[in-house]
Amino acid sequence: MKFSNMFIPTTKEAPKDATLPSHQFLVRGGFVNQVGAGIYNFMPLGKIVLEKIRAVVKEEMDNAGANEVQMGFVTPTSLWEESGRASTMGPELLKFRDRKNTSFVLSPTNEEALVDMVNNRITSYKELPINLYQINTKFRDEARPRFGLMRGREFLMKDAYSFHSTHEDLVREFNLMEKTYKKVYERLGLEFRIVEADSGAIGGSGSKEFMILANSGEDTIAVCDSCDYGANVEAATRKPNKKEALETKEIQKIHTPNCKTIEEVSNFLNIDAYYSIKAVIKKAIYENSSEVVVFFVRGTDELEETKACNAVEALEILDATPEDLQSANLVAGYCGIIDLPKDIKVIVDSELKDDNNVVCGANEQEYHLTGVDLTSLDLTFKDLILVQEGDTCPHCDGKLSYTKGIEAGHIFQLGTKYSSAMNATFLDANGKAQPFIMGCYGIGVSRLVAAVIEQNHDEKGCIWTKPTAPFMVDVIVSNAKKEDELEVGEKIYNSLKENQIETILDDRKNARFGFKMGDFELIGFPYAVVIGKKLKDGMVEIIDRKTLEKIDVSIDEVVSKLIELIN
Amino acid sequence: MKFSNMFIPTTKEAPKDATLPSHQFLVRGGFVNQVGAGIYNFMPLGKIVLEKIRAVVKEEMDNAGANEVQMGFVTPTSLWEESGRASTMGPELLKFRDRKNTSFVLSPTNEEALVDMVNNRITSYKELPINLYQINTKFRDEARPRFGLMRGREFLMKDAYSFHSTHEDLVREFNLMEKTYKKVYERLGLEFRIVEADSGAIGGSGSKEFMILANSGEDTIAVCDSCDYGANVEAATRKPNKKEALETKEIQKIHTPNCKTIEEVSNFLNIDAYYSIKAVIKKAIYENSSEVVVFFVRGTDELEETKACNAVEALEILDATPEDLQSANLVAGYCGIIDLPKDIKVIVDSELKDDNNVVCGANEQEYHLTGVDLTSLDLTFKDLILVQEGDTCPHCDGKLSYTKGIEAGHIFQLGTKYSSAMNATFLDANGKAQPFIMGCYGIGVSRLVAAVIEQNHDEKGCIWTKPTAPFMVDVIVSNAKKEDELEVGEKIYNSLKENQIETILDDRKNARFGFKMGDFELIGFPYAVVIGKKLKDGMVEIIDRKTLEKIDVSIDEVVSKLIELIN
Repeated sequence: MKFSNMFIPTTKEAPKDATLPSHQFLVRGGFVNQVGAGIYNFMPLGKIVLEKIRAVVKEEMDNAGANEVQMGFVTPTSLWEESGRASTMGPELLKFRDRKNTSFVLSPTNEEALVDMVNNRITSYKELPINLYQINTKFRDEARPRFGLMRGREFLMKDAYSFHSTHEDLVREFNLMEKTYKKVYERLGLEFRIVEADSGAIGGSGSKEFMILANSGEDTIAVCDSCDYGANVEAATRKPNKKEALETKEIQKIHTPNCKTIEEVSNFLNIDAYYSIKAVIKKAIYENSSEVVVFFVRGTDELEETKACNAVEALEILDATPEDLQSANLVAGYCGIIDLPKDIKVIVDSELKDDNNVVCGANEQEYHLTGVDLTSLDLTFKDLILVQEGDTCPHCDGKLSYTKGIEAGHIFQLGTKYSSAMNATFLDANGKAQPFIMGCYGIGVSRLVAAVIEQNHDEKGCIWTKPTAPFMVDVIVSNAKKEDELEVGEKIYNSLKENQIETILDDRKNARFGFKMGDFELIGFPYAVVIGKKLKDGMVEIIDRKTLEKIDVSIDEVVSKLIELIN
Repeated sequence: MKFSNMFIPTTKEAPKDATLPSHQFLVRGGFVNQVGAGIYNFMPLGKIVLEKIRAVVKEEMDNAGANEVQMGFVTPTSLWEESGRASTMGPELLKFRDRKNTSFVLSPTNEEALVDMVNNRITSYKELPINLYQINTKFRDEARPRFGLMRGREFLMKDAYSFHSTHEDLVREFNLMEKTYKKVYERLGLEFRIVEADSGAIGGSGSKEFMILANSGEDTIAVCDSCDYGANVEAATRKPNKKEALETKEIQKIHTPNCKTIEEVSNFLNIDAYYSIKAVIKKAIYENSSEVVVFFVRGTDELEETKACNAVEALEILDATPEDLQSANLVAGYCGIIDLPKDIKVIVDSELKDDNNVVCGANEQEYHLTGVDLTSLDLTFKDLILVQEGDTCPHCDGKLSYTKGIEAGHIFQLGTKYSSAMNATFLDANGKAQPFIMGCYGIGVSRLVAAVIEQNHDEKGCIWTKPTAPFMVDVIVSNAKKEDELEVGEKIYNSLKENQIETILDDRKNARFGFKMGDFELIGFPYAVVIGKKLKDGMVEIIDRKTLEKIDVSIDEVVSKLIELIN
């Protein structure tokens, strides 16, 4: 392809709201342009990259034996009512009515549609398993679409859904998908980590995320420095942080003026904050109701909000407002576990199960209790805590540390959540109807375009990995009005193409050399060949985009040298 | 691929509303399933066919130098307000509001979005021409979605938009696209005809349609038996149908009781109906208004409604109701061209321009006028007539006849309609701002899946053309529980695959031979190889799906024989 025949509108101006390098460089490099909030067009270079990623995903899914399908993007709301998600998904699920006043949604994911497609078409365990996937447009009406392609509303996703007659077979496919995804990200040339994850709105038990490591990642993941354990902090666990148990004491009520924080209380009482418990008061939002919940964690720990949300099976949890506290008769800063108002839901972190002598609020202004024995109370314990850097790995004695990742894939063992809700069954070997056992598996294809750049860029622009680069080599004719330069450029360009190397020729007559170099650096082709001043000595220059190193080679050797560098 | 690993849910039941063979067989063959009115999922076999067609379209567009892009499917209504189509497109343009109450549409086509993308990114005539295309989902909220994939609401379309600095360059690209489309349909193995067309809601001047010839086609096209002229009847013309002119006479008013039709009047007056004119009364609908219009055509001709609609630049025209006639003071059955109520719009067919002695209604119950001289009146003439079979070709002396076609492609010379409305300009060689001169070019990719079958089927099912077949050969193991049969089947299957022949192995253990043969015929793979009874003599059978002819070949020869048949 030649620059002169391609629409590559590079620009110096980044969007005002672009904080991420990928957002800035993909817009500036002429890869994408914004249509509306969270909606992007892919311009020619962006489309090439998108298709390269799509092709790798498709090939690996096909290799794994999955069948490609293409589902309607517009689906009837009635399907979503069968599963219950028409209401539980909230405003992210964009609903509208057609000219006949029938309600439809723009599909944000497709569990319901696939269950509906398979139901009554697969009737016997003999026809299972099957894994159906598509690479298709999705829409989620995000409250705050941002970061360019990273968190758009309209995006391209590979979503796959597998159907099984036994849980063991689901686990086999889940593991196969994990391997398949690994191949995808490896082939794309990305550094990534597979981590344990929260299942979120999709539901089911057991899920793993594929995190592209990048400083700008929205997700924090905890990784072990010794084994391969990694988990999204939403789901990360640790070996319990145990200190010596104290002796049991009588409960005492103590006047603690101005001691609203754990630090204030433990200083005032001169105790280790480890032996105190902290109340975190939240408002849990359900489909048709809400309630105030008090979560207790150790004074030295923090509440992890996703774990808290899952613990009470809420749609989301919000910080309780002063009004919420007042209406629930809770005393801010002095909320404790004894004598709480009746009907207040209480969840306690599992690590506190054996604690027999802790400090907590007295549910009375300026008073705390000491000597509280949690083992004597009837409590609900759940894992609630945010693991910290330095905590001990749950699988070995290594230490956990944080790193940042971009979620680019997520695989779920769904089980029968959707098939049961939608009454989709097959006959098992005994002729008995059973709900399909399902898995589902997503890859954010358009998000990956941005993720490659988040992981691979410098201050000048994009640095595409070889498998994702729109073209491998940019043959830059310094001055395309000079016939000899253009002729050599075209010769090298044709020769590279004959060698199956994807090449673009910068033959623009009205662009100066500096502008062409700027475009090369901004767009980020892996290599450039510059035909310029040294041509009189029969030499051209190869530039490596990543290192920006330059080497002089003779015209005759340039193609073989590039082949050597590329492989 | 093996049948046992693929989701191919064939069925004996066709949808109740399926009148077209493609609708019946694509559903019965497990290619597609309906999600909602006019919305279909592509199941694995359907997806393969869709992708084959997409790949051919992409390859030919790329060969023609067009750049692939991918536009947002959801676009802001504000873009459509700039062009004016937010209101003129009517309810086919599906609008909805997002969670922030901003209005969006599901793109039915993308002129506006492309103009917006190119505007300010291409600023000089030196950067022109460019042709940008995408193969992407579209949505049109049709009043009566029907015929399966043929007239769906959600569909896959290739849409391309070219931008030029001169009209000559637009014509060059238009001709290149015509050639490119020809290659696409030829490569798909389809019989088609390129015809002159009405430009419809897209607008612009000069358009051609690509009609896949099939009895079930919704479009009627007039074709010449002698030259290559062809046109949609909406746009077809003919050499004027001229009879000898009569002598001019005085106007006479004649009592014509019970003569409401041309036949009745001409019989009553004993004249040739050719020398009468017929009033066709319509109601023209505009963006914010409507009006009654009287169209006059020769007594022996019929009004072509699309031409009538274009003649008054209406959004659509409806039959006038008795109430419309009454409010416009028109006399049903006796409406004539003289002394019509003032302010009634009148359009006369161009072929009547020189008629100096015709019969028409007197605008009075039971009276007609004779001797009406149209040349003495101040009239607006437009081409209004529906060409008839037997009419003379406009380009030669051949005769026109009708045939049926499925519109599978449409190319337009748009001109500056959208760029002017949206104020999208480039600087010409004199530094003067000029609106982009545009073309646009569409191919109905998902409709082509159905069109292939409309043209290629029998009473048993689909007969895919070789380039569109989901697999070229179906290796049928008659009884897959017999190890020798299965072994030979697998051997042939592997050997065909090694020879790059797309093959599916029907290895289903729980399906009987008759069922497998039924699936072969219904699905319509070009060839089957049956491994059955003759295996003991070392023979298998090849079946040609199109002719259903069977030939016996030895196991050793089957692959080479198939290669010979395929090429």
